[in-house]
Amino acid sequence: MISSKIRKQFVAIVGEENVLDSESSLLNYSYDATPGFQARPHCVLAPRNVFEVSEIVKICNANRIPIVPRGSGTNLSASTTPSKGGVVLLFKNMNEIIEIDEANLTMTVQPGVITQRIIEAAEAKGLFYPPDPGSVNISQIGGNISTNAGGLHGLKYGVTRDYVIGLQVVLPNGEIIETGGKLAKDVAGYDLTRLFVGAEGTLGVITGAVLKLIPKPEATKTMLVLFEDLETSAKAVSAIIENRIIPATLEFLDQATVRVVEDFAQIGLPTDAGAVLLIEQDGPKEIVDRDTERMAKICMETGAMDVQVAQTPEEAYELTSARRTALSALSRMKPTTILEDATVPRSKIAEMVGIINEIAKKYELTVCTFGHAGDGNLHPTCLTDARDTEEMERVDAAFKEIFEEAVRLGGTITGEHGVGEMKLPYLSLKAGEAGVEAMRNIKFALDPNAIMNPGKMFTAKQQR
Amino acid sequence: MISSKIRKQFVAIVGEENVLDSESSLLNYSYDATPGFQARPHCVLAPRNVFEVSEIVKICNANRIPIVPRGSGTNLSASTTPSKGGVVLLFKNMNEIIEIDEANLTMTVQPGVITQRIIEAAEAKGLFYPPDPGSVNISQIGGNISTNAGGLHGLKYGVTRDYVIGLQVVLPNGEIIETGGKLAKDVAGYDLTRLFVGAEGTLGVITGAVLKLIPKPEATKTMLVLFEDLETSAKAVSAIIENRIIPATLEFLDQATVRVVEDFAQIGLPTDAGAVLLIEQDGPKEIVDRDTERMAKICMETGAMDVQVAQTPEEAYELTSARRTALSALSRMKPTTILEDATVPRSKIAEMVGIINEIAKKYELTVCTFGHAGDGNLHPTCLTDARDTEEMERVDAAFKEIFEEAVRLGGTITGEHGVGEMKLPYLSLKAGEAGVEAMRNIKFALDPNAIMNPGKMFTAKQQR
Repeated sequence: MISSKIRKQFVAIVGEENVLDSESSLLNYSYDATPGFQARPHCVLAPRNVFEVSEIVKICNANRIPIVPRGSGTNLSASTTPSKGGVVLLFKNMNEIIEIDEANLTMTVQPGVITQRIIEAAEAKGLFYPPDPGSVNISQIGGNISTNAGGLHGLKYGVTRDYVIGLQVVLPNGEIIETGGKLAKDVAGYDLTRLFVGAEGTLGVITGAVLKLIPKPEATKTMLVLFEDLETSAKAVSAIIENRIIPATLEFLDQATVRVVEDFAQIGLPTDAGAVLLIEQDGPKEIVDRDTERMAKICMETGAMDVQVAQTPEEAYELTSARRTALSALSRMKPTTILEDATVPRSKIAEMVGIINEIAKKYELTVCTFGHAGDGNLHPTCLTDARDTEEMERVDAAFKEIFEEAVRLGGTITGEHGVGEMKLPYLSLKAGEAGVEAMRNIKFALDPNAIMNPGKMFTAKQQR
Repeated sequence: MISSKIRKQFVAIVGEENVLDSESSLLNYSYDATPGFQARPHCVLAPRNVFEVSEIVKICNANRIPIVPRGSGTNLSASTTPSKGGVVLLFKNMNEIIEIDEANLTMTVQPGVITQRIIEAAEAKGLFYPPDPGSVNISQIGGNISTNAGGLHGLKYGVTRDYVIGLQVVLPNGEIIETGGKLAKDVAGYDLTRLFVGAEGTLGVITGAVLKLIPKPEATKTMLVLFEDLETSAKAVSAIIENRIIPATLEFLDQATVRVVEDFAQIGLPTDAGAVLLIEQDGPKEIVDRDTERMAKICMETGAMDVQVAQTPEEAYELTSARRTALSALSRMKPTTILEDATVPRSKIAEMVGIINEIAKKYELTVCTFGHAGDGNLHPTCLTDARDTEEMERVDAAFKEIFEEAVRLGGTITGEHGVGEMKLPYLSLKAGEAGVEAMRNIKFALDPNAIMNPGKMFTAKQQR
């Protein structure tokens, strides 16, 4: 698909050392963190600046060659598998923090910067970049932006979208545009910034971003709360919000997850606990102390078994490890771990977890559920084996039902992972046929040759 | 343009009482709050529900009849003048607050609800809806959403976009879609919610919205700070932010505005003050007290002439009246008041106000500037007379230069008013030709017959 003539053009743009098309390179970039999806690209390119990206896009557009922009490939919905072959774009040569502007509280970055580096660079200036997806230590900001990554701070601080105030984008025709800027307010035309955030690379290539920073909270306090059953923990979540407290983190683990975590990490969780909440508050010290005390009281009054408040940062680290190790603990149980992110209004969490458990029982599957209780963002996680075709059919059927039920409760098929290739059959459940048609019209208005990450978000039929 | 056959169809949908096409109705809806723009619609319709809106849109689409959705017509960029005639849609029959959901902290509203009613309904439940455009007492939420309205809380709390988490929209083809929902996280496809926010009715008709609410701050404190000159006040703004304090309100008035306000309201402002800052902080009482004290100290250290901290709500009201009366005070000076909203990065405010003053001098115009210092959102206000053709030419030339300079400083042509008909010649200054072309492609992908608010945002040529 990539002729030697086109390969020469790519070499002329990025240099031989940035054209990767050895067998091992093509294999390396044939999959991402999503189980069950694999497709080889024809070529992997690592451009060094926006102009090189623009030149590559122009060649691909003229020759109908698919382009898949890729960060660290940590996404869980097969958004970065090169389903239709073509070129995978890497950003290892575009990984600079360009500027931290302390007067305007912004950071200007290239797409290849690791998210954790952004968080640490902000902290070094007494500032805070709140989005912290699970993959924060290895994920790249370009990927975070393309998937509108979430994390543990959604309830109080929002998600990646809320911190991207400007973008540099190479459009599918190769034109370079800049949207937004170091601006708290900008209504000059359509909000292209937020359109590209979460577009999963289907509308263009993100080559730079202006991020909004906020002052770093003075203090943080962490607590772990144990409940006999799920319903009581959900009542505690509601009671906290009804008391007008918005904690910085409000995470949840169900009994199945608690047991697996304790077996793995041995941190002293009572395995008879039906549910565990991990709660953090941040802000001025006196308010953190006050909120923590009030939340502990609310939880006990709602019927919690036990409340453990960390007295030191080390203790806090230990408590949060129950949540942080959840995925690792679950992953070692079975050959294949499928982590989903059906999301419902916060008030429907208990109902939704109950439904998930019933569906798991019906299809004879092991599903553990944890996630962001404050956001209603659940991670039902199926422990299975991709080689067992019969079981995988049951897994697919179960997740389809889970998505349908989430939407029925006013929720969505994906809270933070994206649609990608994995969930494209379900997009119309949430967006409706007319909504998907509107999205498809936007896609083809900007990318008439469908070169940008084809095979994602819309079904093949829908891609025309 | 509206045949009697089509009129009959409209009557069959909304009832005779909701078809307004008397001479006085057509005149009433021929203009909005923007001086110098007027055009008569052919018909004014007040549908009673989303299905009626859908039926009207289908008829208009089939017959290529323009539709201009209109709230209270308070916008300042001629976004709601029916430039191409057609149908003006009113929402006086769709003005209900459907639900306040205290568990999920959301409010579901119809487009015709007055913004102030939303704010008050939230407050009655101990909750807070922060966006507060100047027209909050009469503007409708549908208009606020369509223009992504800003206000005095932008720096700390963001703008309308940040509080719209779900929409019901009638697309130009008459299809009804629902986007988002009562969800803190949702990445199912493109972010249509934020695309419709600020689209000025050019992509569809907003028929409902889910708004995000937050807990009401416990306390508020207000202070007025006087400075000898503009540069010092700008330094104080920077110093506050550099001290990692984000006040709820950080407003600015230049000397010309201070003088006019004092002459009008006689609230004891020293007319030799070169600039005035109005600062408010909200939050837990102890933090509000601490921040207020620190900000007062920072202002004095930076060289403020005087700091007045309100000791009672009545005193706070008096202090804020300096800012609130600015537009009224300016409006009485000359027959025509043109209020603009060029916006720059916060750090460039002093430079931008200096440039505005030079441009005013060059074109021999009276321009007073006030606005949202925390957002870099300036309101250079020209006191003029629309009947004086020669002066109006100088006004146009001056504002063109102001927009060019704002963009040169990394700013935008409009922070919160929108593009409408008034600023469409300037959109490409900010978005670039390629950016405008991308927006236009999106517009025509969703509205191929250009029935939705034609003549806005893009120039006639650009509309194809």
